[in-house]
Amino acid sequence: MKTFEKKPINKIVRGSKRARYDQEQVYKILDSHFICHIPYVFEGTSIVIPTAYGRKEDSILIHGSLKNRMMLALLEQEKVSLNVTHLDGLVLARSVFHHSVNYRSVNVFGKARLIEADDEKMEALEIITENIIAGRWNEARIPNQKELDATLVMAIDIEDASAKVREVEAADEAADMDLDIWAGVLELEVQPGKLVANSDNKPGLAEPESAKNFRFSNNSVKRG
Amino acid sequence: MKTFEKKPINKIVRGSKRARYDQEQVYKILDSHFICHIPYVFEGTSIVIPTAYGRKEDSILIHGSLKNRMMLALLEQEKVSLNVTHLDGLVLARSVFHHSVNYRSVNVFGKARLIEADDEKMEALEIITENIIAGRWNEARIPNQKELDATLVMAIDIEDASAKVREVEAADEAADMDLDIWAGVLELEVQPGKLVANSDNKPGLAEPESAKNFRFSNNSVKRG
Repeated sequence: MKTFEKKPINKIVRGSKRARYDQEQVYKILDSHFICHIPYVFEGTSIVIPTAYGRKEDSILIHGSLKNRMMLALLEQEKVSLNVTHLDGLVLARSVFHHSVNYRSVNVFGKARLIEADDEKMEALEIITENIIAGRWNEARIPNQKELDATLVMAIDIEDASAKVREVEAADEAADMDLDIWAGVLELEVQPGKLVANSDNKPGLAEPESAKNFRFSNNSVKRG
Repeated sequence: MKTFEKKPINKIVRGSKRARYDQEQVYKILDSHFICHIPYVFEGTSIVIPTAYGRKEDSILIHGSLKNRMMLALLEQEKVSLNVTHLDGLVLARSVFHHSVNYRSVNVFGKARLIEADDEKMEALEIITENIIAGRWNEARIPNQKELDATLVMAIDIEDASAKVREVEAADEAADMDLDIWAGVLELEVQPGKLVANSDNKPGLAEPESAKNFRFSNNSVKRG
């Protein structure tokens, strides 16, 4: 099993017992989310907005319009990084100081490159779509040539990465253990809510299987 | 009502009909979340990890340990930006090309400054804690002097900001309206899950009101 080398850029300095460098865990966290944050530099300021992604082997795939300011900036950068985080719970300690959150978080570092061949673009769009909501690609009308030409598709090749995971109960100071204060974890989950049909849908169309089967990955707290 | 001026740094170029510049909407989105993404520069690379925040008037408040790499880097930067995003739904169009997500997203731009006075630090920690989970500050043991001294507290004064909101149903090409493909929105919600008591809790402690009352803000899709 591959392990990412610890370098200054990806080494977890604080809370190092929560660090994970094995590729299997890093990819598991990446594959159970679909929104990442990729900072880019505009006029000297680092800016970040969330964007959807998918993973193919050792690359993160993203897409946008031909004039997407973020993507065009990323292509100019020597190195690109991105973060993916699952927020799994609020850690309620006896002391405010030891309050925390449970999470699974990955940072990836690499270089951005354009994907230009039509077949590779199409494959990347399928991977991204299926990573957001499995089964949707085969339900919807896939991109035509005009739409493909209007889409910028990019890979960020994963050179370095690390994960940080907190998945345990609250940890208080020994001196606080006798306080009459409840400690524990309030788990948080991203859940599908209502499925709202378009007002202009053709009559009689069944709700899609992709939406009915949608699940977002969630972890549970481990007892200490 | 104050409106943020459109400048190159905060102007929404693509999807400008989804742009919002009024302070009321920007602050409403900020106040209904508690995790933000603040990119910082390390060895020439922009990096982002999520962090908890609260708002006091025109400042975003964050905290961390005295050696927090991100916070120390932010203090050195001429300008700091951050993003807050609610992911409200998956927009399932008839065409893959018009798939999207519904969201409420804010980017804030400003300057970071250290908060050093004990009373201001304490107030900031209360604001951050209460923004994460209302009512918890009064349930837990508040920070003592040693803990306060070990905590870095920082304000990012909001100079520029803008929001982008998508909250409508799927929008397809006219040529696709006759396809037998269901279109609509699968709403997503962050929900509290299980409340897991610490294994070392004193017996007989009631579950805290803060956890029982916890709600995360969610929007519903508007019909087109």
